Amino acid sequence: MSSLNSSISSILKSGEWSAKPQGDCMSIVVVGSIALDTIETPFGKRVDILGGSCTHFSYSASFFHPVSIVGVVGEDFPPEHIELLEARGIDTAGLQVVEGRTFRWSGAYEYDMEEAKTLSTCLNVFETFQPQLPETYRDADYVFLANIDPELQLSVLEQVREPRLVACDTMNLWLNMKRDAVAKLFGKVDVVIINEGEARLFSGVPSLITSAQRILEAGARYVVIKKGEHGALLFGPDLFFACPGFPLETIQDPTGAGDTFAGGFMGYLAKTGLLDAKHLRRAVVYGCVMASFNVEDFSLDRLKGLTEDDITNRYLEYITFTRFEGA
Amino acid sequence: MSSLNSSISSILKSGEWSAKPQGDCMSIVVVGSIALDTIETPFGKRVDILGGSCTHFSYSASFFHPVSIVGVVGEDFPPEHIELLEARGIDTAGLQVVEGRTFRWSGAYEYDMEEAKTLSTCLNVFETFQPQLPETYRDADYVFLANIDPELQLSVLEQVREPRLVACDTMNLWLNMKRDAVAKLFGKVDVVIINEGEARLFSGVPSLITSAQRILEAGARYVVIKKGEHGALLFGPDLFFACPGFPLETIQDPTGAGDTFAGGFMGYLAKTGLLDAKHLRRAVVYGCVMASFNVEDFSLDRLKGLTEDDITNRYLEYITFTRFEGA
Repeated sequence: MSSLNSSISSILKSGEWSAKPQGDCMSIVVVGSIALDTIETPFGKRVDILGGSCTHFSYSASFFHPVSIVGVVGEDFPPEHIELLEARGIDTAGLQVVEGRTFRWSGAYEYDMEEAKTLSTCLNVFETFQPQLPETYRDADYVFLANIDPELQLSVLEQVREPRLVACDTMNLWLNMKRDAVAKLFGKVDVVIINEGEARLFSGVPSLITSAQRILEAGARYVVIKKGEHGALLFGPDLFFACPGFPLETIQDPTGAGDTFAGGFMGYLAKTGLLDAKHLRRAVVYGCVMASFNVEDFSLDRLKGLTEDDITNRYLEYITFTRFEGA
Repeated sequence: MSSLNSSISSILKSGEWSAKPQGDCMSIVVVGSIALDTIETPFGKRVDILGGSCTHFSYSASFFHPVSIVGVVGEDFPPEHIELLEARGIDTAGLQVVEGRTFRWSGAYEYDMEEAKTLSTCLNVFETFQPQLPETYRDADYVFLANIDPELQLSVLEQVREPRLVACDTMNLWLNMKRDAVAKLFGKVDVVIINEGEARLFSGVPSLITSAQRILEAGARYVVIKKGEHGALLFGPDLFFACPGFPLETIQDPTGAGDTFAGGFMGYLAKTGLLDAKHLRRAVVYGCVMASFNVEDFSLDRLKGLTEDDITNRYLEYITFTRFEGA
């Protein structure tokens, strides 16, 4: 194990995992929701805490690569939340602050923490949101279209010139209400990152393999299916990868785990600049690692105190507990 | 991948995976149910097909190591089922054929195939079953106490002299009805092999890590938690291992998957005779591999046609789709 760890450490240190990306690399651009969440889990209740798909993604990805966000908040949005993002170097030039109230979501989890029960959704300023990419964002190499209306995701995609890698997420609401737009979106992105329930909803069949095939048939190059505590699956041309979740004794709040996963996945790929099967596999593991931190506390509370060493160490732990094939 | 495969192939061929165990090795002794199952899944319905925990375990383990069974059937038990087991070299000296009808179980699975709904259980000859080990079984090195009344499992354990490795399974029925006997059993075995729902039922908490700790506190040295299509977890002293399930497009019938897993796990350990962490991890993967074959058809129908090459090839595939750490 010690020789394994040292060999992996040397891989991680050999440029892939340098503290800051070299040169004038382009940021990852992410569009998605920025929310004030009210969440109840068996471990407590929090009111109006920082949440949203754009928030969780950007904070997670910022540990790997610079990130620029596109989103909207109301005048009631606490300025310290924007400061928190900017303190991690996140570019907020694409964040619109408009008249009205910030998007609010309220949800509750049962003891098994498997699925949130939505108690209320108040779109507020999100209702009329039209994402506008600042000129400096339009040459982005890496774009993540976090869960929002698929038509808005498509409009963002049209504003980007020549991205190297575009990934998207969605949710059951859009799969039920705007299936055609979602299918069109899947046809225009490189990677669909989706949870198992949504994958099954898209395909109409219980098999995750068949579900992934349907998404690939819609035109995506790769599909990542997130399975929460059970890990993730990656499908693509001549590529299949499966990994278990990082086991945790206690999960405080699963909200944002999927976006945090996507942040680790995209962040790692943008950091290395390598999009081959080997790096895609590792990116899935970094996604699991980042998600495992996220669920250990509410909102960004666990990630706030995170260091690059914490991430590397958990990645090494992950290797240790998944190996079996022998020397 | 080709260099990986050749290096793994050479490991597999270096004596671990020889066609027949050398010398006068002792069989694995298994006690459990032998049943006639009536099963309905979205893929069909079968009436009075060969099933039972002892059956699935022994057939699976027989691909790795000789097996001797302890069980009971009624006079109505079709002789061809016994011939089927014997054709794989399974020793049936401990199989009692008694007056009355064979144990019958009837269950149905929904579309998601996650859990069987029991439609009926007729204990029949099982009601008065007292397992008696033939003298030749009592020096067994490897013993599997498949799911039956924990008091019968304990009585079998008392009949074995100096086993090297004893493992057991159980089910929610016994955890609800005879929790103390189950806890006592856990204190007397080396490995508890249990599914995630049963582990949570034993501990009373949703965390699988905490659930495993409770089972270890009861006295088991190792715990394997089976998670169906999501793979398995292995816990023990200074040992934690997690692996995903072998992905399948179609699952015909999950009945017996857990016992088939246990057969692969114990069979591999008995074959190698090595009980260190490395071999325990591989044994878990062989468990997943064998279970993945079992669910592809009803009863033993998929395993009937299986070859050792099929098993090795699926194990190699498994390595291929779970690797990520790099060269």
